[in-house]
Amino acid sequence: MAGYADTKDDHLRRLRRIEGQARGLQRMVENDKYCIDILTQVSAATSALQSFALSLLEEHLAHCVAEAAAKGGPEAQAKIQEASDAIARLVRS
Amino acid sequence: MAGYADTKDDHLRRLRRIEGQARGLQRMVENDKYCIDILTQVSAATSALQSFALSLLEEHLAHCVAEAAAKGGPEAQAKIQEASDAIARLVRS
Amino acid sequence: MAGYADTKDDHLRRLRRIEGQARGLQRMVENDKYCIDILTQVSAATSALQSFALSLLEEHLAHCVAEAAAKGGPEAQAKIQEASDAIARLVRS
Amino acid sequence: MAGYADTKDDHLRRLRRIEGQARGLQRMVENDKYCIDILTQVSAATSALQSFALSLLEEHLAHCVAEAAAKGGPEAQAKIQEASDAIARLVRS
Repeated sequence: MAGYADTKDDHLRRLRRIEGQARGLQRMVENDKYCIDILTQVSAATSALQSFALSLLEEHLAHCVAEAAAKGGPEAQAKIQEASDAIARLVRS
Repeated sequence: MAGYADTKDDHLRRLRRIEGQARGLQRMVENDKYCIDILTQVSAATSALQSFALSLLEEHLAHCVAEAAAKGGPEAQAKIQEASDAIARLVRS
Repeated sequence: MAGYADTKDDHLRRLRRIEGQARGLQRMVENDKYCIDILTQVSAATSALQSFALSLLEEHLAHCVAEAAAKGGPEAQAKIQEASDAIARLVRS
Repeated sequence: MAGYADTKDDHLRRLRRIEGQARGLQRMVENDKYCIDILTQVSAATSALQSFALSLLEEHLAHCVAEAAAKGGPEAQAKIQEASDAIARLVRS
């Protein structure tokens, strides 16, 4: 079971909204909308993706990582390394 | 005519791919995929949105802003202020 | 003359504050301060650097790029390409 | 004892380099260096701050958070919440 089982519906709602934003951006480009207005929507979609990632990461730390840490050993270290790498990708993207 | 008229098809292709990434994320959540793998895909989608924004912004500077600057006056200043604000939103999002 | 001649003192003030934040971070590490408090200060210093960059970039667009655009030709294109590359580095860093 | 006790010297070396970058930026502004060259240095300093933050965060997860998670209870939850908030600040700054 994934660490985000309880919030799956909430995540799916967010992602459908992000998919809608990506479709909205296509309509803007098709209709020759003004660049700056398109950029504003891109910033909104980027923020929405980041918020989704941050809430997924928080659940991952609270479930998968915390459980592995409670057991300890190399598995715990591996989970923390893996989470740290994912955080670095988010911070740098 | 929008500043990105020549590259409209390329932009639409990118945005359709981003829409596909947003749908792929929904499938991952629906199928209880591992958090870290989902986060990797979010980072990829975020980078794709940023690349789209940066290429749109470059065209905006090269066309709309450059033309306004060539004419000069308050219109030029307004265009540069507007572009700067959009850049700030991108850097901070 | 640099495009930021009028605001040089303001820029130097900001940068001295950022230097002070970097020294403050060293004191925190030397005194074994709590990681989370250090991270909060890093976020503040990063935001200060970004704000400095954004105000410098705005002046660059308003002066150097606008003047080159007013003259037109390959020099104008080169300036816009150069500014776009700098913006991409800021967005991705 | 802070979670970063073993790597304190390495952290201090990084932070002294970042302080040096902030001083270098002041020299560039004082000497009217070209905006774009200054912006390149700002991107380098921002990346250095992010790398410092990410390595500190990784140690924090591996020590403070892992130990709290091993004990469990509300203390563990509080530590994970606190780390998640710090990650959100980093991603958004």
